[in-house]
Formats: sequence, structure tokens, C-alpha cells
Amino acid sequence: MIIEMKTGASRAEVDSVVQKAKSLGLGVQLNLGTDKTVVALLGGHTGQLATDLFAVLPGVESVTRIMKPYKLSSREVKKQNTTVNVGGVEIGGNKFVVMAGPCAVESETQLMEAARIVKAAGATILRGGAFKPRTSPFSFQGLEEVGLALLARVREEIGLPVVTEVVDSHEVAIVAKSADILQVGSRNMQNYTLLTSIGKSKWPVVLKRGFSCTVTEWLTAADYLLAEGNNNVILCERGIRTFEDTTRFSLDIGAIPVIKKASHLPVIVDPSHAAGHHDLVPALAKAAVAAGADGLLIEVHPNPAEALVDGLQSLNPVEFARLMEELRPIARAVGRTI
Amino acid sequence: MIIEMKTGASRAEVDSVVQKAKSLGLGVQLNLGTDKTVVALLGGHTGQLATDLFAVLPGVESVTRIMKPYKLSSREVKKQNTTVNVGGVEIGGNKFVVMAGPCAVESETQLMEAARIVKAAGATILRGGAFKPRTSPFSFQGLEEVGLALLARVREEIGLPVVTEVVDSHEVAIVAKSADILQVGSRNMQNYTLLTSIGKSKWPVVLKRGFSCTVTEWLTAADYLLAEGNNNVILCERGIRTFEDTTRFSLDIGAIPVIKKASHLPVIVDPSHAAGHHDLVPALAKAAVAAGADGLLIEVHPNPAEALVDGLQSLNPVEFARLMEELRPIARAVGRTI
Amino acid sequence: MIIEMKTGASRAEVDSVVQKAKSLGLGVQLNLGTDKTVVALLGGHTGQLATDLFAVLPGVESVTRIMKPYKLSSREVKKQNTTVNVGGVEIGGNKFVVMAGPCAVESETQLMEAARIVKAAGATILRGGAFKPRTSPFSFQGLEEVGLALLARVREEIGLPVVTEVVDSHEVAIVAKSADILQVGSRNMQNYTLLTSIGKSKWPVVLKRGFSCTVTEWLTAADYLLAEGNNNVILCERGIRTFEDTTRFSLDIGAIPVIKKASHLPVIVDPSHAAGHHDLVPALAKAAVAAGADGLLIEVHPNPAEALVDGLQSLNPVEFARLMEELRPIARAVGRTI
Amino acid sequence: MIIEMKTGASRAEVDSVVQKAKSLGLGVQLNLGTDKTVVALLGGHTGQLATDLFAVLPGVESVTRIMKPYKLSSREVKKQNTTVNVGGVEIGGNKFVVMAGPCAVESETQLMEAARIVKAAGATILRGGAFKPRTSPFSFQGLEEVGLALLARVREEIGLPVVTEVVDSHEVAIVAKSADILQVGSRNMQNYTLLTSIGKSKWPVVLKRGFSCTVTEWLTAADYLLAEGNNNVILCERGIRTFEDTTRFSLDIGAIPVIKKASHLPVIVDPSHAAGHHDLVPALAKAAVAAGADGLLIEVHPNPAEALVDGLQSLNPVEFARLMEELRPIARAVGRTI
Repeated sequence: MIIEMKTGASRAEVDSVVQKAKSLGLGVQLNLGTDKTVVALLGGHTGQLATDLFAVLPGVESVTRIMKPYKLSSREVKKQNTTVNVGGVEIGGNKFVVMAGPCAVESETQLMEAARIVKAAGATILRGGAFKPRTSPFSFQGLEEVGLALLARVREEIGLPVVTEVVDSHEVAIVAKSADILQVGSRNMQNYTLLTSIGKSKWPVVLKRGFSCTVTEWLTAADYLLAEGNNNVILCERGIRTFEDTTRFSLDIGAIPVIKKASHLPVIVDPSHAAGHHDLVPALAKAAVAAGADGLLIEVHPNPAEALVDGLQSLNPVEFARLMEELRPIARAVGRTI
Repeated sequence: MIIEMKTGASRAEVDSVVQKAKSLGLGVQLNLGTDKTVVALLGGHTGQLATDLFAVLPGVESVTRIMKPYKLSSREVKKQNTTVNVGGVEIGGNKFVVMAGPCAVESETQLMEAARIVKAAGATILRGGAFKPRTSPFSFQGLEEVGLALLARVREEIGLPVVTEVVDSHEVAIVAKSADILQVGSRNMQNYTLLTSIGKSKWPVVLKRGFSCTVTEWLTAADYLLAEGNNNVILCERGIRTFEDTTRFSLDIGAIPVIKKASHLPVIVDPSHAAGHHDLVPALAKAAVAAGADGLLIEVHPNPAEALVDGLQSLNPVEFARLMEELRPIARAVGRTI
Repeated sequence: MIIEMKTGASRAEVDSVVQKAKSLGLGVQLNLGTDKTVVALLGGHTGQLATDLFAVLPGVESVTRIMKPYKLSSREVKKQNTTVNVGGVEIGGNKFVVMAGPCAVESETQLMEAARIVKAAGATILRGGAFKPRTSPFSFQGLEEVGLALLARVREEIGLPVVTEVVDSHEVAIVAKSADILQVGSRNMQNYTLLTSIGKSKWPVVLKRGFSCTVTEWLTAADYLLAEGNNNVILCERGIRTFEDTTRFSLDIGAIPVIKKASHLPVIVDPSHAAGHHDLVPALAKAAVAAGADGLLIEVHPNPAEALVDGLQSLNPVEFARLMEELRPIARAVGRTI
Repeated sequence: MIIEMKTGASRAEVDSVVQKAKSLGLGVQLNLGTDKTVVALLGGHTGQLATDLFAVLPGVESVTRIMKPYKLSSREVKKQNTTVNVGGVEIGGNKFVVMAGPCAVESETQLMEAARIVKAAGATILRGGAFKPRTSPFSFQGLEEVGLALLARVREEIGLPVVTEVVDSHEVAIVAKSADILQVGSRNMQNYTLLTSIGKSKWPVVLKRGFSCTVTEWLTAADYLLAEGNNNVILCERGIRTFEDTTRFSLDIGAIPVIKKASHLPVIVDPSHAAGHHDLVPALAKAAVAAGADGLLIEVHPNPAEALVDGLQSLNPVEFARLMEELRPIARAVGRTI
């Protein structure tokens, strides 16, 4: 942490910064005698200290953090890649993983049909929402417990592991009964009560990026899961909110190499929510594979025209099968298999 | 809702749009014979219908929503201003309301001192956080239940109504015991489980704007509270996330007149979280009064240099007293009192 | 400038950073022996050096700039406020200055009428565009030279100084003949060819903020004008681009106190382009006065329903006169006059 | 264009909307008798009409544009892909085109060496800046005319067509003497004086996206070039400004399929300016190929550690050669060659 003192800051003001740093067990590197005094604070936990602790002191002009605020998700702490294993499927390894299925579970027929379609095309994990957080209270909110039961039944019948969203810290255990992977939605990325609860469960979890959260905040949120001893964390980029309005969100493709450099956690991409339109999903999915993502989370519906939620961004069976074929040579080109 | 058909869309495609609209009870206004067929759908609930229902149909180029997705918070539904009454304080009326106090409850001494200071300067509601959602799991998370007990004690002693944050849908009742107003934090604005629970409680609530949510999404979130019969809803603008980095967030001052036009709900402003630095708080607070806000939510600490959370953006007692003096003539200039 | 070396960076890598710094005349403060080596570079011109010079060196993890990149516009270089004097009107002094008039000059009648209206209501500078940069090539582009002639005529007739936009570095002299203040539009804030040309002219200039430029970039752009010896620089905040869509742009009200702290230059506010709708203009104008701006640049049209450009955001004569009345007590409340 | 009237708008107010529409030669489709009157305006040029023309009329609640504001760059106007041919290189055809070279021309040795390197690795167009618009007036601004002469010499010697930036509308002819393709930089995307001048020159042009402009504004800016009869327009996505700060800009990979759907113009990607760091460039470059871009514009420097501009984001010769090898199989996977 670097403290820039104001021009003309007094010796007493500098001393008070130094005292505070020492009281927190930090090393201090001091430079006096130039235009501006600059104090460097050294120590392994400066990333976790609030800059405010020093910024409030008299005579301080600015405080700059050098260390990252995240720790457990950082590649500095763990060099080798983390992989998450779920029902025989490894996420984060050499094989590129496709999770696919409907946005919302609507009925047994719909879910069973979707599961057969995505499995036949090569997906290895089934997605489907039972609890649907919706912008408006007047929209369909999901089948809830009934939806969970359908997921459990289809999982057994078709033999695909299941990923589904959990929205309440008190429902982690019940959702985990029907799901192999829990999903934290974008709007809950900073719902720390929920994160702590899932962390304690140790259950595999997909942590979607908050649509206006930085990569740094995202990795710091992952620390909430890891700090409780849950190492089965999969990150999921799903588009960020920008001024551009021809896509629903802007897929931050740059986040993929950034995370591969900064963190040991696997990262997948949800091209459906970013695109907002099925026509645009294939290009984003292909870009994700090429950029080095470990998997995809894609919305597929047996009949998008009758979907209760997000039909426009869902691929139909033909589109999905074609996309899977197109992804394979790209995966090979980057040294992976699907 | 306006459906633009693709150039060359077939008669059958247009018919299928019309059929779907009629099946949903909508009126249809159809124009054929120009370059492009445009279908206008009419009816009171088109704001609550997903555009996807039509966008997925073959031959459709685009779907544009005319009606707003929010309903109960809209001024179209309720013309006169809503006021919220809490322990003798009216929010949304002619008197401008200042809620002030520390970001986090740290001790009885700190809270008692803060309460005395803000009351003496003219604040009529005390703020203080017992549960503190923090970006990092390694940061101070608040005194939790102990903090609630301190809030209850100081409220009785000093005689100021209290506003405090609730972060878990299962803790609404317990927090309500120590608080006159519940606060939904920015990161929880779209935590619909929490909103529904507070809605059912009918307890007065400050709904902070999600830092990357549009005004439209904010008012739609308010609908979650109103739909459960809770009419005691106070909106709070606290800055949005933009590319600008000299302030912590960018206070969206334009949201004040927008909400006054679109909604009947009272709206207050939190200049502290937007500014991120106590030097900038007064200008934002004054702007809020001038722009027509109904109140302020300000962080004040007896000794910011020792604050456990957000010390840099907290006003000290002298700064707060001076600000209150400066706000009074501006309030008078816009026809209000403090 | 602070150089963070990678964990395990070699002594030779650290030396090469130190050598480069010394070759640039910088002081070096070095810390070895902790987890990470941190090198602080000291010297008055580090704000103007590219961080890349060090970031590219082997073993460097990150480079953080402490000094601001702007210099001449900084309050560190000049403590006292700059004022700009134009035809007897002082901008940046105690008197709050209102510049008003139509977006585009459309005809002599329109301009003359607008000038009379705004002067009668208390504006002291007339605005009007002769060159109109438009998003589409098929839109009205302004009366150009004819518009300049009209501005010159009305200025003489009514006796108000005139501000108008210049869009081409080769037209600075010709526009200056008809205008007391040149305006650099938002889309040209980083048109350095234009800035250099206006800088050389020494003519008073309103530098509008690029709608997606940071305050730091804005002040650095002002340095282009100041570096050529033009000290007659007035900054103008006009809204930034964000995700919010109920206003045309988001007025960054926080930029006012930030600039007052960081720079000696006067700063005014254009509430019309930020709002995009005349109903919202008064609240933003009032907020600007309260937040400490030095003036306003407002669009007023004798008959907005017939305006060729931006009619929706233009105040009509009655609205403008009312707003001026409402602004006066707010100005008094912050110790200024209008 | 869809006009929504206010609830309770009078018949006279509706009539005045209808009159204005008819006076502009538009067809009118009117619906009376529901809650709200909605007026649809029909006609081929509604995309080029300002919505303000109707929004200012009394009784109007909102005006929604259905038609896009761009026209000549639209795929509706021209179905088949445009290709641009420069010195035997076709841009927009089956062959993927790589333009590479240093950010700034620094010396004959540097440019010659860079040209040899990129040609050997398979690039078919040489990039290099002679005029460098820089954020600060104290930074290196390019070799200007000397740089142009070097570009001309190296072009002849090495036999690669050249792309370079032009920043002044009066210098189009002189720059065109040394360049096969003119480049409009991001900060000049809405410099309409410059666009018009290049449009008249008919010279091939790379139009970089303004870093805060929407795709719609970008295509409308392209209309400025096309409207002057210049059909040799190549679009270039180079990252947009968002809140994310681990990359210099956020590459909007979604813009590639959006443009392929909406426009007939070729589109290339500049991964260097988006990434801001050479480590991140390869992932973005690969994503661009996979997403369907027609080419890349990449910064390569013989010795990035000594680059005068943007060294950190420049690939060194080894990195560039490796990237070219990695791109080839991805190109094949999407049916193209490099």
C-alpha cells in the first residue's frame, strides 16, 4: 500500500501514518526530503486492509493499493489449476465442458426432451432453473420445489449431472439434494449470506459474475466460498452492463485471459444471457472456446417459441446440434476436446 | 408493444403474431401494405408481458415495449405523493428529512455519541449498520445481533427513530424489533427473496438503488414490496457505477426529477457512498436538496480516523453541523424546511 | 510512480528498472528483502511519463501512477481560481453566469427573439450553434458561415457576448470573428489538432467534457489549451454516457466538487444535453448551482416545437424565465448572485 | 416511429401529431379509443428523422424509433458483403487479413525491421502511426511528415500495403500519398469534418469504433463516408470503455456478429488497444477469428521494451510469430484461411 502525503505535510502527520502502520504489523519504507513524502507499507496482508485506515489520517493525499484484495482465489496462493469433479465430469481440465438446457424447468416433458437433446449433441451437464429471480413480481417465478423434483427425476432417468440456481441461504441443503452443482446468479454474486452458506456446504458451485462487478470483486466474492473450505468453485462470465444496447449485456471476453492469469479457478462462459438473441449465441460461444474458457453454460429449449422465460436467447435443438459440431474443430485448434 | 415484422414477412407469420396477441387478451392494430408490417399490441398489462413472447415468432424483426414494466410504483397508478411516517417523522412531505449516523455500529459509546451529535445538528433519524455486507470475507462484518441491541438501546435513550440494513430474508422480524426503518442495500436491490419478505412485513423500508440498475429496474423492484401490500417504501439514490474514478460512484442526480415524474414514492439521496470522500459530500448533499430530493442518508462518525468502516467518506461532527447549516437556506430556496 | 516487481524477480531485473529510472532523471527509493520488491520513482514530472516505460521491463508486475497526468490545469501549479473575462462578463468569479440561447442558429428572427428573451430573463451570454456536428449525415448540419454572420449581427444589436462551437482547426480564426467564446464540443474534447489551434489563438474557450472521458482526461485535454498559452479556459460538464436511459446522459454532478478541488479553472454545467428533456432541465440546473458550478449553458428556443435541432430539451421562454427566478435564491444560499 | 400519447391527450393534440407527420410525407396509422392513443408513422426515411420533431408536441408521452438511423451501411440497403481491395489484398473476403506493425513509426530501422518481421510471419498489411493523438500534450506526438516518408519508403522496399492514421481533414491528400488505407482513430469516429473529407477522397479507410459509441452510432458514422461515395470502408472494433479495469478497454466481441447481421461492411478487430497488455492479446485475437471477424490490426514492435508508445501492449517478434501459428487452425475451423 502506497501513501502519498500532501505537499507540505508535517513531520507529525507522517509520523502518525508510520505509527498506524506499525501498530498493524506492517513494514514501513519512508522517503522524506523530496516534493512529496511517499510512504510504502509492506506486508503480506495489505490487500485485505481497507485503504480508508490511512486515507482518513491528516496530511494524506491518496492511498494506492498494490496488492489485490482477493487471496484464496489468487494464483499467487495456488499455482496449479483447480479442477472440479461432478458425477464423472471434470471442469477445468483438458476436456471442454458444455452445460446446456432450458432457462426454466417448465414441465417433465419439456425437461426430459431438453435433456435428451443436449445429451445427444454432446453436452455433459444439464442446466435448468427451478427458482427464477425475475425483474418483475408479475413474471413467472419458476416451479420452485416442483421444479427441483423434476430435475432429480430427469437426472436419474437421463444420467446427466444437474446445475441449478439457489436464491436463499436457507435453501442450500434442499436444492443440493436435486443438484450436482449449485448456481449463484449474477444478481446474487455479492449476496454474502448466500455465499457463506454455500461455502459451508462444500457443494460444487457456479459463481456467475455480477453484471456490474469487476473481475477483482468477482474473485474476492469467490474468496467467500473458499474461505469456508469449499474448493469446488467454477466461475462463469455472463456479460457485463455497458452502454451498448444491441446485445443484452456485453460479453467481457477479456475476462477469460485475465482470470487464467490471476486465478487458479476454472472459468466458463454463458453466451446466452450476454447475447440476448439466439442468432448471436454461436459467435460468442466460439469466441469463448478460442479465448481459453473451460466450458459453456448455454440455454437450449425444445421449442423456444413456447418458452416461458428467455425464449429469444434459447437455441432450438437444430441450432444447438449445429453449434456443437462447429465448436469441436475450434476446441481442437486450441488443444482441447469436447 | 410494437412488433416490427421483417421485410418480406409472410401473411402467415403476421397472422401467428396476431393469434398469439389475441390469445393473451390484447388488442391488435395491424398495418399491411407498406415496406414493413408493423403490429401494435394494446392493453393495460403489456408492460408486464415479456417481449420474448413475440420476439421468438418467425418473421419478427424487433419488439419494442411502450408501457413501463413497473406498475404499482408508477404515478399513473397513484397520482398523489406517498408519504411514509415513522415515529413522528414524515418522509416525502414538505419537511426535508436528514438520516445520519455511522456506517457501522461499533460500540455503545460510539453510537451514543454519534446519535447525540446528529440529533443536535438537526437530523431526525439515526442510521447505523449492524449487519455489514463487505466485499471481502476478511473485512469486519458488523456487530450483528449485538449491534441491533445497541441500536435499540440508543433509540430509547436518545429518542430518534432508527434505520438499519437487513441482509437475510429470515431476519426481517428480528431486525424490525430494533429498527423503525429497514434498509435494503444496493447489492440486494434485486434480491427478490428479501424484498418479498420485507414486503410481507409491511415495515417501512429504504430501498437503495442497485449501483448498476436502471431507474426502471429500481421502480420494478419497488413493485415487489408494494405487491405484498407494503406501501411504506422510500427510494434512495446512492450513486451508480460508471467509468469515472475520482468519485467512488457517480451520483445520478438526474434520477431525482425522473422519479418525481414517474413515481409517487419519496426519494432520498446517500451522498456519502457516491462521493467516497468526506470533502465531496457537502456539494452532493446540497445538489440533492436543490434537485428536489425528500431527504438525505449521510454517514457521520464521532471520529472518522478511527472508524472501522468507510471512515474516509464519513463527516466528522464539525463538518456535519456546518453542512446542516448550509442546507437550510437551500431547502428554503426550494420551498422546504429542514 | 510505484513499480511492483514480480515475486521472485531477480536482482538484475530490479537493477534494470533502477537504471531506466536514473536515465530519465528520476529519484529511486528501493526496498529489497520482503516478499516483493517495490520501487518508488520520485520526481516532479512522473505524471507526464508513460507507465509503459517501466511496465514492459522484465520482472515488473505492475506500475501505479501517483502523480496526476495533468499539470497546467492543476491547482498544485496555480492555487488561486482562474477567471475568464469576456465583454465585461467575468466567468469563475462570485457572480454566477448564465449562457443561454438556441441549440442551432436557424434564422435572424429566431436568433434575435431568443437573444431578447434570454437577456430579459437575466442571461449574460448568448449561445447559438452555426456548425452542428450531427450523428447522421442526413440531419441538418447548421447554417455554417451564414449562421456566424447572424451571430455577429445579433451580438451587435442586443449587446450580449456570444459563445459558439468551432469544429475545424482551420476555422478557428473565422469563427472567432463572430464569437467572444469558442466552444469545443463533447465529441471534439480529444481532437488535439483542434485544441492546439484554439490554444494558439488565445481566444476564450468553453471545453466541454467528452461524454465518456474521465475528469483526469478532461483536465489533461485542458493542458493542450494551456500549454499553448491560452489561459482563458472554461470547463463544461454536460453529462456522461452510462447504462441509464431515462435521461439522455447522466449529469456527473460529482465532477463539480472534484474539479474545484483539483483545478483552478472555472467550471459550468450544460443541463440541457444531460437531461434530454425540458421537464428535467430545471432540477439539474438547480443542482449545478448548489454544487458550486460557476455557470450554466442552457438551451432556450422561442418555440421549441419548431426547433430544427434538440427541441425536446430546449426550454421555452416561460420555462426559462421561471427557472431564472428559481435559481436566484439558491445562488444566494451558496453565497453567489445571478 | 411510434408516438405514444399521454393518457387523456385531447383529439386536437392527436390531430396535430397527424398533421405534422403528413406534412413530412409520412403514412399514419392511428388508434383511438383505448387507454392510450398510439400513432404509428410509416415511411422509408423515418430512421433519419429526429424523434424530437414529434416529442415536443403537446400531449406526446414518448416517441420510439423503429427504423435504424443508419442507412447506407445497412444490410437492408445492400445484401451482399462489401470487400475492400488494397494492393492485391482483399479485406472482407474468405482470407482473414492480418495488419500488423508498430503503434508509432520511430525510425527507419525500427519500421523496416517491424515490416520484415510481420511479413515473414504472414501479415499482409503494415500498420504504423506517423501522427499520434496523445492524451497529454507532453507526450511524443509522432514523427508526422517524416514518419509518412518512412512509411512510403518501407512500403516500396518491403512490398506491403500500409495503413496509417489521419487526424486532420486538411491532411487527407498528403497522408494518402504514403498510405494505402487511411485510419480514423477512435477519438475521431465522430469528427464529421474529417469523415466527410475522407469520404470525398474515396480512399480505403479503417473506421475505428469510438470507445464509447454504440454500434448504431458507429454504423451511422460510416454513413458519412458512404454518403460521399466512398465504399471502401472497413470497420474496426477496438474495445469500449466500461467499469472494468483489468483490461485497458473491454473488447466488445458481441459487436462482430451484430455487425455481420446488420451491415454489409467488413469488420476487423484491434486486440492490442483493448487488452492493453501483450499477455492478453493472443486470447482476444483468437476470439476475434472465432467470432467471425474479417481481420486483425495488431501492434508488433521489434523491441517493445524500447517502444516510444504503447510498448506494454505490443507483441515482440517471437510472440507475434507464435500467435500467427495459433490463429491458422482456428481460421480453418471457421472455414477461412490466413
